[in-house]
Amino acid sequence: MREGYTVAVVGAGLVGERLVAELRRREFPLKELRVLARSARRAVLAGETFEVGVAEPDAFEGVDFAFFAGTEGEKGAAVQLAREAIDRGAIVIDNGSDFRLDPQVPLVVPEVNSEALNDHRGLIANANCSTIQMVVTLAPLIREFGVRKVVVSTYQAVSGSGRSGVEALEDGRADVYPKTIAGNAIPLIGGVGEDGYTTEETKMREESRKILSLPELEVHATAVRIPVHTGHSESVYAETEERVSLSEVVEALQDAPGVVFCGNAGDFPTPLEVAGEPGTYVGRIRVEGNSITYWCVADNLLKGAATNAVQIAEALVGARV
Amino acid sequence: MREGYTVAVVGAGLVGERLVAELRRREFPLKELRVLARSARRAVLAGETFEVGVAEPDAFEGVDFAFFAGTEGEKGAAVQLAREAIDRGAIVIDNGSDFRLDPQVPLVVPEVNSEALNDHRGLIANANCSTIQMVVTLAPLIREFGVRKVVVSTYQAVSGSGRSGVEALEDGRADVYPKTIAGNAIPLIGGVGEDGYTTEETKMREESRKILSLPELEVHATAVRIPVHTGHSESVYAETEERVSLSEVVEALQDAPGVVFCGNAGDFPTPLEVAGEPGTYVGRIRVEGNSITYWCVADNLLKGAATNAVQIAEALVGARV
Repeated sequence: MREGYTVAVVGAGLVGERLVAELRRREFPLKELRVLARSARRAVLAGETFEVGVAEPDAFEGVDFAFFAGTEGEKGAAVQLAREAIDRGAIVIDNGSDFRLDPQVPLVVPEVNSEALNDHRGLIANANCSTIQMVVTLAPLIREFGVRKVVVSTYQAVSGSGRSGVEALEDGRADVYPKTIAGNAIPLIGGVGEDGYTTEETKMREESRKILSLPELEVHATAVRIPVHTGHSESVYAETEERVSLSEVVEALQDAPGVVFCGNAGDFPTPLEVAGEPGTYVGRIRVEGNSITYWCVADNLLKGAATNAVQIAEALVGARV
Repeated sequence: MREGYTVAVVGAGLVGERLVAELRRREFPLKELRVLARSARRAVLAGETFEVGVAEPDAFEGVDFAFFAGTEGEKGAAVQLAREAIDRGAIVIDNGSDFRLDPQVPLVVPEVNSEALNDHRGLIANANCSTIQMVVTLAPLIREFGVRKVVVSTYQAVSGSGRSGVEALEDGRADVYPKTIAGNAIPLIGGVGEDGYTTEETKMREESRKILSLPELEVHATAVRIPVHTGHSESVYAETEERVSLSEVVEALQDAPGVVFCGNAGDFPTPLEVAGEPGTYVGRIRVEGNSITYWCVADNLLKGAATNAVQIAEALVGARV
């Protein structure tokens, strides 16, 4: 490991801020930390003042790792700038969705498929927030029991849409979601494809298949926005190859990297408690025959975005995962 | 049909009030409408002033139909008073959960199994709110295609817990739910049984089996409270016997009694819009092979409670259902 790396964070929104916070909290070996955005300004991110630079090609001179925070529903800055950064010697870790399904781009959740980092070409994609916590919890079940089919329903927080989502919930901002989110549940995240699935639901299927190396995995996802600030929850049903027992499932999840098992009786994780925590929390496990049903919660800005991205960089420099 | 019936509503909470409103709105043939509760008082329910009487045996003299509003999580008044009311000639329709699984008590959702009313013994059970909207939407799919397995995740409103649930959401009342409900999602409704399922989830399985006359139906339910005032939503996955097509499924649901189909592209029902409406609203239908995934919403106090109960009485007197 070198003494320290020059890191650029591209984006000063909620994910950009969490990237700064996670690089500091996890003590990523930093020589220099730059924040880049559309326009130059002074900004306070995670309690630290930055002279934000303009995200343009030359801003990546000397950068070892460039984290692109990504944006929801539009092409991210990585589409314009990733190649420029790579050409200047940076490894790009993109939280946006533009490159995730590109066969030449590893899509990595380090607890699940860090081996995919071995043949990157300078660009690594961070997975969709809802996908990350699902595959972290599915991977041990797949490893131990084999899983052929998943039915998942999400309970997604507004901060997944960035600051505008938070404004929609807290201030009634009306141009963010198709319907009022305060006091409501909106079963539509992204556009609707020809098969009736939304882009969010399709990401959960296609990204999971890629990360888990299970191109045939059945994933029936329903992605729903609810009036929660931060923390995505998921109700997951997984069908295994063979009959399993509750104790086997609990053991597999307790031992799984990145998973925090919350017990199985009256206790369970909720987004209000998990917001701000880096792990993926699991509870309410039920097992019948060859089916496993459980509840999992993760901070969509941390494990669902910033934490996972920093873990990718850590894996690349040989630090902890 | 007689000229009019003497009706007693037992309970002056949210469901009691909706029972009064639905009896009026649906123009149930009333000769007299009494409201009974634990203590006598003057109360305004659905804009109408009542001299509320004490719910005691003699209060049921001359009553033709007694609607018990039911309570969540404790024995309802029907346990004490249903027999007294029946002995005095009343037909009791109980919204509580005490008698639902009693083999001698019909458990009825009129669109689905009104034939079960043929052999009642004076007592008819109204089903659980989450169960009603699920079976209304599953019944046409079962009729047309056969369904062997259901995976359902709920998004339940606080008014399902009565006025105290609304106070927990709106005023932060802390003794209603196991954790803060404002800005949160709580995957625990009722107590946890030995198999890990909560009472609410078990109701959804056992009541559905009884109403649908499918004692072997697989139902994997996860019941979750979210910060919504009124209107339960459900993400439902149903596996059919044979492969189905989207157009067949849409047609079956469009033709189904009690179902309001909201279209299948960008439009979909939400609880904020469905609150106050008597139907069961369906959207987001996706079909792959032999699986059907959809979203349904109903007012938990109306179709989930009061409307269904009044429909039962209508079926008994030969009025519309």
